[in-house]
Formats: sequence, structure tokens, C-alpha cells
Amino acid sequence: MDLMERRIDGETLYEGKIVKLVVDHARLPDGTVAIREVVYHPGGVGVLALDDNGNVPLVKQFRYPLQKLLLEIPAGKLEPGEDHALAARRELSEETGFEADEMTYLGYTLASPGFCDEALHMYLARGLRRTGQHLDEDEFLDVVSVPFDELVRQVMDGTITDAKTVAITLKTKVLLGL
Amino acid sequence: MDLMERRIDGETLYEGKIVKLVVDHARLPDGTVAIREVVYHPGGVGVLALDDNGNVPLVKQFRYPLQKLLLEIPAGKLEPGEDHALAARRELSEETGFEADEMTYLGYTLASPGFCDEALHMYLARGLRRTGQHLDEDEFLDVVSVPFDELVRQVMDGTITDAKTVAITLKTKVLLGL
Repeated sequence: MDLMERRIDGETLYEGKIVKLVVDHARLPDGTVAIREVVYHPGGVGVLALDDNGNVPLVKQFRYPLQKLLLEIPAGKLEPGEDHALAARRELSEETGFEADEMTYLGYTLASPGFCDEALHMYLARGLRRTGQHLDEDEFLDVVSVPFDELVRQVMDGTITDAKTVAITLKTKVLLGL
Repeated sequence: MDLMERRIDGETLYEGKIVKLVVDHARLPDGTVAIREVVYHPGGVGVLALDDNGNVPLVKQFRYPLQKLLLEIPAGKLEPGEDHALAARRELSEETGFEADEMTYLGYTLASPGFCDEALHMYLARGLRRTGQHLDEDEFLDVVSVPFDELVRQVMDGTITDAKTVAITLKTKVLLGL
């Protein structure tokens, strides 16, 4: 079956600092017309940094859409045109104060492909050296060091709910056989 | 440190069929004011259905925001007020034509908590019985049966990129020791 949906026309309803909202008319495979609401996002990077003692620095921050504190891997949005490997090193350094000798690319995930194009590139960082945290001016977070085993436990028991943190933790566990 | 951000005022810029876009002013922990762009989403459910032969029905569909076909677990949005356990049974049945004797809740993930409140509830379905697919009228997809081992391989090698499919596949692998 041809599953493709073809754009007819559309309108950009909002273009902000983070998201752009576009509402299109699209022609469906059966010829009918449907509305497609799309949120465009620059994409981002997330880093699981595993130190030589098996600990992982996580960041605790207030997530405004949920109105609560969440524990997540260090992560951030891509700047326009930025290479995601460099962005991963930048976010790790800014948020946790670590630099890494070794960065392994673990692929990307699409956060919610039904309405949004956001891709999140994942890196496993090893060979960590401490430099110093230097947050963006509107960024407030605490860094918490968690043993990798404990991180896996918190992912499996539902304490950690952030999708990128779940994905990168379990990918790392399977990859390294931990 | 107090990490909380407090809403000052805001405006709803769009309220559509799937998403609502709100732009707020919020007071940050240091007293400054920032703009917070928030996409509200009704949340959803996703189901990994494992049959007695170790195969998993996946759905291949055109994802308009990415303009490509993706392979994902059967999933769908919550109706207003709908119980997520019932929604999981409904989506599994509608999209793949399977009903399940046993549904195990695997927790939820937050798709992209920096700008969106979407929560995705995950279920592992076992004891499958085939009834019959009955799609929504604007839904077009193919069902593909994939051995669980092959699904894990495609998650690990980056062929499968949908975040909920990555999370539920690896949670199931760890939970069942597969």
C-alpha cells in the first residue's frame, strides 16, 4: 500500500525560540484531505557519561511543562548548523563540568514522530576529566552522581521517566553487557 | 537550590486536534523572567505484543513531520478521560487485530519534557488472540511481524529510531531477561 501523505498547503502559526508550529493540509493515501499539526524542533543531544568508578552524572532540573523536577542525562538543543558530536561535548561540559577522552555515538531517537520532528542524538562518554560547570544564564540545575546499576534500577522501576534517559541507559546496558 | 520556575502569565496561541501551544512568562529561580514555550499533548499508549512464537507485530506508517515511513510499536493518543490500560487494548486491537490475555504495565516515558508534557504509557501484551484490524478512517499503516531478537537488533543498530519503540523494546528485554 502507498502510505504517503502529500502536503497541499499550510500555515506557520508560531515561530519561537525553541519550537515552530505549522498546520498543513495533506492529501492522504485514499485521496481525502486531513489537517496535520506539526511542531518543528531543532533537535538535541544527550550524554551518558560513565566514569571509571561506574558512576554517571545526571542533572536534576525543573521541567516547566510538567511543573516538576526530573532527573535526566545532561542534554541540550542543537544550535543551528551545529555538529551533534561537538554539541554533546559542549552540553556535557556546560551542565556537569566533565570532558571526555572517548565519545561513542549510540544513534538517535525521534521523540514523538506523530506530531514533531525532534531527533535526539545520544553519546556514551568515557575517560572523564573534571573541568568546571558553566551553565547558560537561564539554566538552573543540580548535578547528581548515580551508580550505573542504580540508574538502570530507576529506569526499570519507573522512577526515571525521561524518554531519552530511558533509551540511552538501556542501550548502554545492552551494548556494554552491564 | 530552589529550582522552581513560577508562571506569571501566558497566552494560548493554538488549540488544535492534537496539540495546544501556550507561551508563558515565568519567573526563574534568580528572579529574572523568561519565556516558556509549551506544547500540551493528551498523552498516549504504546504496546509491545509478544506472541507465543517470540514475534512482535509492528506498524509501518508515514510520519508526516519526518516525511518518511517509520517502524513502531502499535500506539495511539489517549481520548479525553480514557484509562490508559483500556486505551492500550484498543490501540493494539485497532492497529494490529490482536487481543491479549495478559497486559503488563511497564511505566511511562515523557517524550520531550523540555517543551512538552506528553506522557506515553507502555504495556507488554502476551497471550495474543487474533481478532481483526479496524483502523480509524484517517489511519493508513501496514502491520509487520518481527522476531523479538530482530527487533532488539534493529533498536541497537539504529534502524528503529522511534523513542517509545526503543524504550519499550529494551525495557522488555531487561524485564524478561531475553
